[in-house]
Amino acid sequence: MKVGLYLPNQCYANQDINTVLSNAIEQVRVARDAGFTSIWCGEHYLVSPVQFIQPYQLLSRLISEAGDMTLGINLVVVPLKNPAQIAEEAATMDLLTGGRFVLGLGLGYREEEFKTFGVPMSERVSRFTESVEVLKRLFTEETVTHHGEHYTIDGIGLGLKPVQKPHPPIWIAGTVDAAVRRAARLGDAWMNLFTQTYEELAHQIDVFGTARQEAGKAAPEEWPLMRECYIGSSNKMAIEECAGPLGGKYANYAAWGLGGLDAEPSFDELARKWFFVGDEASVKDKILRYKEGLGFNHLIARSSWTGLEQEKALNSIRSLGKIAAEIG
Amino acid sequence: MKVGLYLPNQCYANQDINTVLSNAIEQVRVARDAGFTSIWCGEHYLVSPVQFIQPYQLLSRLISEAGDMTLGINLVVVPLKNPAQIAEEAATMDLLTGGRFVLGLGLGYREEEFKTFGVPMSERVSRFTESVEVLKRLFTEETVTHHGEHYTIDGIGLGLKPVQKPHPPIWIAGTVDAAVRRAARLGDAWMNLFTQTYEELAHQIDVFGTARQEAGKAAPEEWPLMRECYIGSSNKMAIEECAGPLGGKYANYAAWGLGGLDAEPSFDELARKWFFVGDEASVKDKILRYKEGLGFNHLIARSSWTGLEQEKALNSIRSLGKIAAEIG
Repeated sequence: MKVGLYLPNQCYANQDINTVLSNAIEQVRVARDAGFTSIWCGEHYLVSPVQFIQPYQLLSRLISEAGDMTLGINLVVVPLKNPAQIAEEAATMDLLTGGRFVLGLGLGYREEEFKTFGVPMSERVSRFTESVEVLKRLFTEETVTHHGEHYTIDGIGLGLKPVQKPHPPIWIAGTVDAAVRRAARLGDAWMNLFTQTYEELAHQIDVFGTARQEAGKAAPEEWPLMRECYIGSSNKMAIEECAGPLGGKYANYAAWGLGGLDAEPSFDELARKWFFVGDEASVKDKILRYKEGLGFNHLIARSSWTGLEQEKALNSIRSLGKIAAEIG
Repeated sequence: MKVGLYLPNQCYANQDINTVLSNAIEQVRVARDAGFTSIWCGEHYLVSPVQFIQPYQLLSRLISEAGDMTLGINLVVVPLKNPAQIAEEAATMDLLTGGRFVLGLGLGYREEEFKTFGVPMSERVSRFTESVEVLKRLFTEETVTHHGEHYTIDGIGLGLKPVQKPHPPIWIAGTVDAAVRRAARLGDAWMNLFTQTYEELAHQIDVFGTARQEAGKAAPEEWPLMRECYIGSSNKMAIEECAGPLGGKYANYAAWGLGGLDAEPSFDELARKWFFVGDEASVKDKILRYKEGLGFNHLIARSSWTGLEQEKALNSIRSLGKIAAEIG
């Protein structure tokens, strides 16, 4: 079982973002030494009162600590950006990491961001699909001429080609069936988003498989599973220690309009549906259930939320490395 | 005299971009040890056959080598981007550098980039002016409501406020009088662009001063001078060693449409007008002429171009550090 670490890159207004940054740097070192495969971080804009560190700059800062781990962005909100920018930044990440970069792409969901960037939400899907097509051409063709519905490129090209050929793995996020089918058609792997139940994932793996077959493409090698994950000395202690910090994060998501969330979600309900929280044995059981039942082979775990003590996050990361090695 | 290093972040298609990257990392260490004040790099999109490393990711990668130097972007092509993105990225740089970041802003000039990003060249100035206004509000106000000609922000804000108050220094680039006046009204300093003669700079300093006074603002503390700079063991050797690499760069600029260039510029003519090339004594004289005659106090030097041997670039950087210390 591969494990990846989803990095903390945010905190509330009244907290110290410098501590978030130094914690992230330390977590990367600990994850590296605990045998993790990858580190990840996400993108948002104008999320006051939340303080948010931009992902590519943070990942680039962390290259000197990351050893052989793969660095991934999860995810670029594709419709907000021009494909030229997405391609240039991905090619640069691939260079800086020596070909250890994964390009995670998604539709986005936060209305305020679309309004700010002047992109109608109604164009999300058509922009996404066209952009991925343009990206792949930019990664592989010397110059590109494209006159599409949303984007125009007129006989120019990406000079800095990616290290990985034909391009860095493109992992596409999706929580609804249409998005999962899009991931099957366009992506090298499908990423879920922390917030899907076992049963929903089982269903979507079927949806993915059917669409993948229809597209005439082989099954992906990588099956990432996104999970909030906290390992404590006992099940009771684990819940006690992470309920405040992790629950608070989901109250924020609810306010931002992320799907599948009640306005005031209860921690027990969220933990039952979505979280890997418990002692080593019980988290190992949960991971095995998803691995053996559904075929996931790369757990991308977020193990740190605003308010959780750093030493507890580090211990949880070490435990997860240990569990992953045991599973093999 | 402060000195800054403008980093190499590009090469031609048939050359090794990994070498450019490792050279840049080494140059940063040498500049740091030679007493440089700052490092800089610029932004472009889709410049095939030139391979180009994106600036914020490169600068972030270099933080671990940069010591106490200031990191600057020169420049963000403002009209290509939403001010939300410009503000978020600048605030992140300010955090990652511990408040040692300078935000260089410019209009851009490359038609292909504007076409690709779907921004009419005719809107360059109005987008720039509006964006700078929005940026300053995002940096300082908790939430912003702005319904402008080009940008809309609806009661949301930048959670991650810059370390430097009220915001990182905003240095505005300009090569024509209108841009210099804009820099005087809107910026904390004015940046020239490698390609202005002594006489043009003298004139524009007057233009800047008048506009600055009309705007009721004090004179800037920083007077950056951008120069291609190469120091060799003799004047003859210096020219011989850098004419190919530096001349080639300007042939490219001519092809991209940068102002003030003939289609096939002659090196001697360019050197006479724009470059600081020679032995230590003659480059020191050139710097002193601009310092004493025009008041520039921060030379931002590019000392490496595709094709120049790294050891020569490093020696030139060391010599420049020595000259700057002598000037004091």
